[in-house]
Amino acid sequence: MARIPLMPITDSMFLIGESREHPMHVGGLQLYTLPDGAGPDYLSQLYHSLVGAEETVQQLFRKRPRRPVGSLGQWSWSTDNQLDMEYHVRFSALPRPGRVRELLELVSRLHGSLLDRHRPLWEFSLIEGLEGNRFATYSKVHHALMDGVSSIILANRALSTDSTTMGMPPVWAVPPIEKAERNGQGGPLALLESLRGMTTDIAGVLPAVVKGAQTALREQASVLPFQAPRTIFNVQITGARRFAAQKWSLDRIKAVRKATGATLNDVVLAMCAGALRRYLLELDALPDRPLISMVPVSLRGKQKRSEASGNSVGAILVNLGTHLADPVERFTQITESAQVAKRSLAELSPLQILALSGLTMAPLAFAPIPGFVNLTPPPFNLIISNVPGAQKPLFWNGAELQGMYPLSIPYDGQALNITITSYAGALNFGLTGCRRNVPHLQRLLTHLEDSLAELEKAVG
Amino acid sequence: MARIPLMPITDSMFLIGESREHPMHVGGLQLYTLPDGAGPDYLSQLYHSLVGAEETVQQLFRKRPRRPVGSLGQWSWSTDNQLDMEYHVRFSALPRPGRVRELLELVSRLHGSLLDRHRPLWEFSLIEGLEGNRFATYSKVHHALMDGVSSIILANRALSTDSTTMGMPPVWAVPPIEKAERNGQGGPLALLESLRGMTTDIAGVLPAVVKGAQTALREQASVLPFQAPRTIFNVQITGARRFAAQKWSLDRIKAVRKATGATLNDVVLAMCAGALRRYLLELDALPDRPLISMVPVSLRGKQKRSEASGNSVGAILVNLGTHLADPVERFTQITESAQVAKRSLAELSPLQILALSGLTMAPLAFAPIPGFVNLTPPPFNLIISNVPGAQKPLFWNGAELQGMYPLSIPYDGQALNITITSYAGALNFGLTGCRRNVPHLQRLLTHLEDSLAELEKAVG
Repeated sequence: MARIPLMPITDSMFLIGESREHPMHVGGLQLYTLPDGAGPDYLSQLYHSLVGAEETVQQLFRKRPRRPVGSLGQWSWSTDNQLDMEYHVRFSALPRPGRVRELLELVSRLHGSLLDRHRPLWEFSLIEGLEGNRFATYSKVHHALMDGVSSIILANRALSTDSTTMGMPPVWAVPPIEKAERNGQGGPLALLESLRGMTTDIAGVLPAVVKGAQTALREQASVLPFQAPRTIFNVQITGARRFAAQKWSLDRIKAVRKATGATLNDVVLAMCAGALRRYLLELDALPDRPLISMVPVSLRGKQKRSEASGNSVGAILVNLGTHLADPVERFTQITESAQVAKRSLAELSPLQILALSGLTMAPLAFAPIPGFVNLTPPPFNLIISNVPGAQKPLFWNGAELQGMYPLSIPYDGQALNITITSYAGALNFGLTGCRRNVPHLQRLLTHLEDSLAELEKAVG
Repeated sequence: MARIPLMPITDSMFLIGESREHPMHVGGLQLYTLPDGAGPDYLSQLYHSLVGAEETVQQLFRKRPRRPVGSLGQWSWSTDNQLDMEYHVRFSALPRPGRVRELLELVSRLHGSLLDRHRPLWEFSLIEGLEGNRFATYSKVHHALMDGVSSIILANRALSTDSTTMGMPPVWAVPPIEKAERNGQGGPLALLESLRGMTTDIAGVLPAVVKGAQTALREQASVLPFQAPRTIFNVQITGARRFAAQKWSLDRIKAVRKATGATLNDVVLAMCAGALRRYLLELDALPDRPLISMVPVSLRGKQKRSEASGNSVGAILVNLGTHLADPVERFTQITESAQVAKRSLAELSPLQILALSGLTMAPLAFAPIPGFVNLTPPPFNLIISNVPGAQKPLFWNGAELQGMYPLSIPYDGQALNITITSYAGALNFGLTGCRRNVPHLQRLLTHLEDSLAELEKAVG
């Protein structure tokens, strides 16, 4: 048994925590403008060039999980020498009229199905038929292979700021990030790195990890004036997904920040809070008490960095003030709550953060702990993450990236996740929900717009 | 506990036998010609009318499985009062050039993903973008809800022989088959009926059932001159699927039958045998010994009908003569083998047949019996089923049905399934395989054509 290299716990926990109700992959939706002079066969040719280049696939995308005899059911990684490129790389199309609506419907479906564990844990879809001279890509990577932040970093690395660069490889052919560069990318990756060495029986460890993380958050919650109420988001989930995505100009959000003296993240949280209030009101499901959001924050450069844990990411609980009808009162509630929370910041161990997914934006299921959802009131109602992205326009073989939207992992008790990434002067919102428990998710997009407009009006 | 109506064993066995490697649903692919005068929005409008008519959904398609508290983990059916039509009914499209090749790729993917157990166990996709002024539909129904034969019968019932009939309901709005009519449809459905009452713990019963069915087949096999060899089809399978489909004129097959005096089914088996030989030769995987096929046969009107079991369907093992290069020798081998097998026909109990799926065309997994594949040489190499369909051209709101292709269920030890259904002067072949273990499945279509041409030449 000693000779079988087991999978690090940070990988295997996502295989063990997975079930048909809880697919454990992150996704990315990218929209591109077709390059000048692209003919009707442009995408078909692109597809064939992608499928044909098996030899360029990096080792990371050749890894497949297996449970070798003698490992007592524990997972290990092996290399797939029979890579079936047509399985991993798919050519899809949208039905007419090919609006973003049809795109989101397709991507919702793609995000709701399990990856095949007999193969390397990724899929990529090239999508044609999007109106407005555009096309899209959807990629899906198992969390055991890569967390959400890493997948955003990798997606950015695969692109170029030069619109004339051709012959660019697809994302699975991009050389891996060197360790030095990883550290340069900051805490999250360095932190993951520190966990790579752990190999132990996650089934035994996980309840304690989650419990510890919750205790830390509860300590923080105890200084908040409110406890998180039960909402329609804090229930057991099913396997199907809804995804909604839209971008908002960074200038609009910065204008609100400037007028209020708040942080950019406060404005984003206020946008979400107003939208959630409208959404829940419409469903007649707004609780009397305000919703509490868990928000991952970077600790780099902050005084609270604990050398002992190597921890440079924290989590704060923010009172979203969803019980307040007045947008200014709500905004004040949010900024004050965020300030208080930062003072009593929950410092979590790397594994705790991974388990609660403040770091990874893709939460580990509480599911492995039977009855968890029913027995314990949630310490927070949803996770809202803001992941920095590229600021300059990016291109893929001359096709300009218009938007990049993260798809995350709902789990039991957390049926909705909001992840935002910045790109080229815009904030790109990706909303991933359990299809059963988060109805009409698209309406949240309208509510986000209305909520921002309301803030602009209130502070203008 | 007595008050909870449990699911009949004939339903629940397919839920219990299901895993991510073994989805337990049957599928149907239908190709239609667009009706005269159909505008560019024809399919979009059709889609919206399908999605909008929730109230027409029959009770069968509202059933969802659940495991009530107090049932000790046993399954029961409940009614879904929150039917999400947009989840069940999907509008998809093919990428350019929209050939049958692109259609089969899409359908292969759709057939490889699990149905959501939190909802009624069916999906339907309307597919646009098929070249040649056509469109397609793919439907997917869990075997716990409906077996393959019933799904073909229902699909036929949903259509009309009149090209001018409009306002026709979709398949899920077709009233259920009356019991009298079911019996009129013959043995298979009456047989299923006789099993409906059984509610017992399948986990305890299944190994004995499968063992009994195998013993019966082995007794038959013992009179065959050959034992089934191991082939690439008789291995553990993965969750992804390949599907290939094509139709052949019944006139061509009848001409061979006439020239040889064999049965229609003999000619179909000979076509398959020649194709399998070519396919396996190409992969350098042809065994020295001939492949053995399990073939369901109807016993109605035959002397062997056993009143005790109510059994009117049997299974025969046919030596496919794949070791013989000469098509005439191979054909002779097949017809002789089929005649011998019919004399020592394996009479199986209803449950045994369901377990081996001679009846249902969708085999129950041997998977629940750990180690089965490795410990026991297979009694046969693949199942080849021929299910009678409609003989006259059928229409759906004026759109003519061009072909109807069944998608079946591969399982551990049976990585390839061939199911054929007749329609309007053609035999429609549906080949469903495990994507990992049955590579280049499309080539079998070419080989089927070559095999038929070879037979025509040999007997012409």
